[in-house]
Amino acid sequence: MRVSELVAVSGVPLATVKYYLREGLLMPGAASSATQAEYGEQHVRRLALIKALAGVGLPLGKIRTIVGLVDHPADTVFDTLGRALAALPPYPAHADGETGDYPRARAVLERLGQVYEPSYPVVAQLERALAAAEDVGIPMTDERLEVYARHIRGIAEIDLELMPTDSVESAVEYAVLGTAIYEPVLAALRRLAHQDIGAAAFAGRAFGDFATPDRQDQS
Amino acid sequence: MRVSELVAVSGVPLATVKYYLREGLLMPGAASSATQAEYGEQHVRRLALIKALAGVGLPLGKIRTIVGLVDHPADTVFDTLGRALAALPPYPAHADGETGDYPRARAVLERLGQVYEPSYPVVAQLERALAAAEDVGIPMTDERLEVYARHIRGIAEIDLELMPTDSVESAVEYAVLGTAIYEPVLAALRRLAHQDIGAAAFAGRAFGDFATPDRQDQS
Repeated sequence: MRVSELVAVSGVPLATVKYYLREGLLMPGAASSATQAEYGEQHVRRLALIKALAGVGLPLGKIRTIVGLVDHPADTVFDTLGRALAALPPYPAHADGETGDYPRARAVLERLGQVYEPSYPVVAQLERALAAAEDVGIPMTDERLEVYARHIRGIAEIDLELMPTDSVESAVEYAVLGTAIYEPVLAALRRLAHQDIGAAAFAGRAFGDFATPDRQDQS
Repeated sequence: MRVSELVAVSGVPLATVKYYLREGLLMPGAASSATQAEYGEQHVRRLALIKALAGVGLPLGKIRTIVGLVDHPADTVFDTLGRALAALPPYPAHADGETGDYPRARAVLERLGQVYEPSYPVVAQLERALAAAEDVGIPMTDERLEVYARHIRGIAEIDLELMPTDSVESAVEYAVLGTAIYEPVLAALRRLAHQDIGAAAFAGRAFGDFATPDRQDQS
């Protein structure tokens, strides 16, 4: 297809397509004359990926990292996916590559006996989140951690089971977008589960006759 | 204590304390002379609450809503907590009170058989999140939903079990801050579980010898 058709099919404006070509995010088309090029399915797919990554909040530099990994995967699947996932927000305040101490995150991960890469931003993210929980007076306890970790593992397992493995592009795309895009879904489902459980536990009760909520055993 | 001590204990600057007093977010102290007032533990606690709510991204108007519910709870516990939780971000793009159609969120909630209040922002939030998942080509499936919902329910149950019930303030504070503050913790734990499961499933494998990842049964 001509570039005009690529614009129509992808919904990405011509100026943006040209910009992605210049920046090397979009691979060049096959030259069909001195001034024209042919584009195909891979270009449509790449534009959809760039659009989706921008939609989950990735700046251009991070999109470049991910597109680069699709085109040139690291030696192992684990490294490729790990580097791609490290491009997701939130971004740590400190410089890339610098690793802090992260005592809370380390304690949690050691307690869970999980393998982790200390330099990935998610460790700093966990540390910040645990520190924030402490600051507001609701620190992580062993009891809460045990339940959270068990259920989060169940969620992570189905995430990996459903990962397509037909191509590097599919796998990277699924890992990055699936991780980012399902975080707000899971957050909303948790709030709605609170509502549903609370509706039964607190039915018609005022704060005056407040006692310990009934345990709901509908899981 | 004098206002200067309140400033020292709370870590909130004097100008901000005065602003909260004027805005009615902080209750007045007991007048001890024509120009002085005495403050106590309730003032320290209220300032900590305001600070924590601002820290999870609530604008002043929403903080006012929550503080108002602490001081004047609704008729039922469920309504009080529901209204307080509805003050949490993310905020829907449409006007307050206006309810959209939310077909994806409704289908999910009906499938799960959950009680929900259609006017609360979390329904719009779920709809947006599900639409975004569709847009990037990883739509919610029944298989994924069944696993997600079961595990999210387990998480929501421990959240409610651990809720303090000694006062309206404690309950509202826990519900709002605990909901908001543990979302990034859960998101980070999920990413780290992916890493741990992936490390075992993909150990040393390159994309060339890529096959379906082994199912991890360590839950």
